[in-house]
Amino acid sequence: MIIKPRGTRDFTPEEMKKRRYIENKLREVFESYGYEEILTPTFESFELIAKKTGEEIRKQLYVFKDHGGRELALRPEMTSPVVRFYLNELKNLQKPLRLYYFANCFRYERPQAGRFREFWQMGCELIGCKRELADAEVLNLAMDGLEKINVKYELHVGHLGVLKGVLEKFKISEEEEVKIRRLIDKEDYEGLERYLTQILDEDKKNLIFEILKFKGGREILDELREILKDFPKSLEAIKNLDKILEYTYNKYVINLGIARGLDYYTGMVFEIYGKKGAKQICGGGRYDNLIESFGGESVPAVGFAYGFDRVMMNVDIEIKEEKYLIIPLNESLIKIAMDIAKKLRDKGKKVEMEIMGRKLRKALDYANNKGISKVIIVGEKEAKENKVTIKDMETGEQRIVDIDEL
Amino acid sequence: MIIKPRGTRDFTPEEMKKRRYIENKLREVFESYGYEEILTPTFESFELIAKKTGEEIRKQLYVFKDHGGRELALRPEMTSPVVRFYLNELKNLQKPLRLYYFANCFRYERPQAGRFREFWQMGCELIGCKRELADAEVLNLAMDGLEKINVKYELHVGHLGVLKGVLEKFKISEEEEVKIRRLIDKEDYEGLERYLTQILDEDKKNLIFEILKFKGGREILDELREILKDFPKSLEAIKNLDKILEYTYNKYVINLGIARGLDYYTGMVFEIYGKKGAKQICGGGRYDNLIESFGGESVPAVGFAYGFDRVMMNVDIEIKEEKYLIIPLNESLIKIAMDIAKKLRDKGKKVEMEIMGRKLRKALDYANNKGISKVIIVGEKEAKENKVTIKDMETGEQRIVDIDEL
Repeated sequence: MIIKPRGTRDFTPEEMKKRRYIENKLREVFESYGYEEILTPTFESFELIAKKTGEEIRKQLYVFKDHGGRELALRPEMTSPVVRFYLNELKNLQKPLRLYYFANCFRYERPQAGRFREFWQMGCELIGCKRELADAEVLNLAMDGLEKINVKYELHVGHLGVLKGVLEKFKISEEEEVKIRRLIDKEDYEGLERYLTQILDEDKKNLIFEILKFKGGREILDELREILKDFPKSLEAIKNLDKILEYTYNKYVINLGIARGLDYYTGMVFEIYGKKGAKQICGGGRYDNLIESFGGESVPAVGFAYGFDRVMMNVDIEIKEEKYLIIPLNESLIKIAMDIAKKLRDKGKKVEMEIMGRKLRKALDYANNKGISKVIIVGEKEAKENKVTIKDMETGEQRIVDIDEL
Repeated sequence: MIIKPRGTRDFTPEEMKKRRYIENKLREVFESYGYEEILTPTFESFELIAKKTGEEIRKQLYVFKDHGGRELALRPEMTSPVVRFYLNELKNLQKPLRLYYFANCFRYERPQAGRFREFWQMGCELIGCKRELADAEVLNLAMDGLEKINVKYELHVGHLGVLKGVLEKFKISEEEEVKIRRLIDKEDYEGLERYLTQILDEDKKNLIFEILKFKGGREILDELREILKDFPKSLEAIKNLDKILEYTYNKYVINLGIARGLDYYTGMVFEIYGKKGAKQICGGGRYDNLIESFGGESVPAVGFAYGFDRVMMNVDIEIKEEKYLIIPLNESLIKIAMDIAKKLRDKGKKVEMEIMGRKLRKALDYANNKGISKVIIVGEKEAKENKVTIKDMETGEQRIVDIDEL
């Protein structure tokens, strides 16, 4: 027996109904902010995907050659493809550009709870605005989406510029900074301690750890300003974050320990945690240098993505549908039954035909098991009077009605 | 500059709006017939995909190994994956099973008009019913979908059993039959002529060509019965087709030249042609042996798929949206503007905020270019009286309204 590839999923009708329901609710929120959907190919050139991360990402990717020898990779995330699309075709459009996507991505990882080799991301990019209102907009949008689908969450906001200002003054190289950021992102504080001990003296190391531990409301920013009063670039970042938060609905935790795994972020960064399953359900931030580094002009941008599968783990819904089953009691009644089905379908009803040639009792059993709410029985005698029997499967109530009244 | 892989597409906001609109209309039709959506992984084991077609399909596929050495392929169509899913997890559900999907598929083909390396299929499988009503249901469903989106089409219906009954009596091997069917499917009648001359005498060859040329309404079936009166299996197939058509809305052409490229069809087969772009926009038929050949019990099934991209080429729509832009005239008015935006969004409106810090004139230019229908201007004086200015961008009309009245 052939089975599905490891780490992937088949989705049943019940799962798909819930997923489409949530997808559409989130779409509504993106669109209510004026975002418009785009879509890029499922695979990209390996060169594009590896551009910001280097060769080492290869082992986490599905890479293959097409028959023309071009090296391709299934996309592991959507920001790089969106930036490529922007540079290829959208860069002359008016700014700001508000784009959203709902797309499957692929990573060759060890499957575990909430982590699959094929997974869905729903996210947006706001391109062309460097002002704080843009950062605040995507933060508010990310939260509004979760509110819309009744997911409980906690938003943690940080700013890479705060630490960057310190590291720059400490003359830390870019390479070292990347290493530091990755250790922070993995929450490997022991590793970070060891690494910083190698390259910095005790006081400087302690300052960095002090910053990383900062968590709280907007009031903690004053304390932070005091500690970092000799780091002008850090103060600038704090000011930027402060203003972003002024325009953000009041439901966040400032958390300077947020570093984000991807290397392209430059300013405000955030993560949103859910209560169930895999904790992080959303992540994003500002990436003002990415477009330039892909060969375009310098264009500021900010965005985020929901991990759609993880959002689904935090969703609690049941979808009820009204379904009809139409049963013609003999062959000569099939066409009448088909006409009734068509009429109801045109009115937006979900109507199954009994096509198995079952006897009434068996057909009713089927309807019962399938959760069908109403059965329409087309019998010879009633049909002659242009009538049918309609049976409510929940109450068991049964009555004869005129076909035109259905 | 990195570009998208050859044969693939990026979809702009305008294209996506149309595609989602049509997708949703077609979904409604599938669901109105009681079909439920499922989804399978984007890639499958190569073994599954090659099962019905053999190794030779490899050159039309994107095949790759994962890091565990398993050979995978991007799915080229959905019927095999759906059957695999059915056998893995759905086979114990009550019959009939009505499943539909909307999924991207991949073929390594020479790109040409209406043919892409990544393309979308929307289709259904009706599993567990061998009766004619099932065939008729999918035919009617396929047509209702196209009616719903105002696509002009022509439905051609054939039946593989008619020719099969003849070939069987002529002692044609299964291998030869496959070869014949492929030549028919490619409409390579010269090749077919040459091939049949090798394996059959003149009379027999002529009979086959006579059958293939049969085209018309239900009345031609009588003529066909006369010609094939010594071929009992063919007569059975004609009877089957006749009954299917009895339950089909009256808009078809019987065309016995339809063979379908895939080898798994067994009975009724059909194709639907559009007027614009690539001609075939839909195809399907009955495949009663496929599930068994994948290692399951013998279960009859019938289904079809729209070539979604080709359907889109035949669609003629324009989507109009009402969009708002809110412009706060200075920084102190941003929060009021945000509140108004939130209120309108909660009511389902699409609302952009002016976040670039532009002067009014420039912001109105932006709105104009972007096709925004209404602009809300938040000015200091009006705001103090809980009022804003609303400007209709089409008429140019401008009036001051109470914020609560918006």
